Amino acid sequence: MRRLILLRHGQSVWNLENRFTGWHDVDLSDKGRDEATAAGSLMRDAGILPDAVYTSVLTRAIRTGFMSLDVLERLWIPMVKDWRLNERHYGALTGLDKAETAEQYGDEQVHVWRRSFATPPPALAVDDERHPRHDPRYADLDPSRLPATESLKDTLARVLPYWRSDLVPALQQYPTLLIAAHGNSLRALVKHLEGISDEAITGVEIATGDPLVYELDDDLGVSRKYSLRAPA
Amino acid sequence: MRRLILLRHGQSVWNLENRFTGWHDVDLSDKGRDEATAAGSLMRDAGILPDAVYTSVLTRAIRTGFMSLDVLERLWIPMVKDWRLNERHYGALTGLDKAETAEQYGDEQVHVWRRSFATPPPALAVDDERHPRHDPRYADLDPSRLPATESLKDTLARVLPYWRSDLVPALQQYPTLLIAAHGNSLRALVKHLEGISDEAITGVEIATGDPLVYELDDDLGVSRKYSLRAPA
Repeated sequence: MRRLILLRHGQSVWNLENRFTGWHDVDLSDKGRDEATAAGSLMRDAGILPDAVYTSVLTRAIRTGFMSLDVLERLWIPMVKDWRLNERHYGALTGLDKAETAEQYGDEQVHVWRRSFATPPPALAVDDERHPRHDPRYADLDPSRLPATESLKDTLARVLPYWRSDLVPALQQYPTLLIAAHGNSLRALVKHLEGISDEAITGVEIATGDPLVYELDDDLGVSRKYSLRAPA
Repeated sequence: MRRLILLRHGQSVWNLENRFTGWHDVDLSDKGRDEATAAGSLMRDAGILPDAVYTSVLTRAIRTGFMSLDVLERLWIPMVKDWRLNERHYGALTGLDKAETAEQYGDEQVHVWRRSFATPPPALAVDDERHPRHDPRYADLDPSRLPATESLKDTLARVLPYWRSDLVPALQQYPTLLIAAHGNSLRALVKHLEGISDEAITGVEIATGDPLVYELDDDLGVSRKYSLRAPA
């Protein structure tokens, strides 16, 4: 039996400030840190001990992984960071106040950007300082791979190849694998694991700080799924 | 130009309690955490930004690496953990009070165990709960590789192959490499880099929380060496 644990990071400073975040590297708030610690306690109490953790290259997800492992006294397990587990890139909305954006573009347009499957927000210009080409953490990547904006569909299109190339082999090596990541990169995995349609996935909410456990058979089909905060 | 930064973790809870530590996974004290943060500030102020960090599988070194990267806002760089960067294994002295051990065995014998190059402390029995065979972090290793005690010479004999197999390739990939580790695993690297004799290396002290920078030429010879707390 293999176990995949999906852990969505908790509140960030920009959640508090009601701003679009995406790839901006904003840190956890104090509440977000408490959520990370609580997630570690939930795993400890359930006796679920990760053998490795995979996370994005964004501080809020890395810290969530680290703090939950700290509670488990398992800081020594391998931690792998990859940009393909990053949050959906929010394009030109990155950093904008959500209420002001709704005033400027209208609620309906903002709703489409937030909730449609295939419509991305306006793209960032390459010379915009918010473009990932200016961030040293992506300096070794082919610039053509770096998004200037993403729809959920675009996010899936980078997460699923990573699932096949890296996460499936990781699950074969590590019987219990923790993924500490973001609402939309985790949605991509949930969509794949549960066979959810394009239409339905935009309405699927993954709770923050609540380890979601998938028990997988040898073919990595889902045999059981439960949340640690509210186990079935 | 390549840079290798050696960072020795700061005070642990057992340093405070005056106990032999070795491979026991005791955490940093509050002072040790402050030292880790200060080391990050020293690197930031010197403009020395690691591209990757290698550390042991012991919490006090991992946390030192993490906290120093946190100050640098570089939690996103790769972090590799390997048992071969662990502290020297202190054998049957692990966990014992240093003063009581000196009363029992005599100051001279304890001095030999602490300071000779090739004399290890008494070995742990395999069924001793302190033996690394009972620690899950070593479960995937061939048990014959796990020490029951080590002299400094024995520590060198596992650190140097790791230097050649993993750290040299890492330096070729990452121009600035941070190693967050322990007094004796770092001594092994300093001995190799500076060509220090067996006799002299036991007297070399590496300061805690003070990033020691080696500038290396293309053949990884040392062209310059300085400490960030007291730069030359």
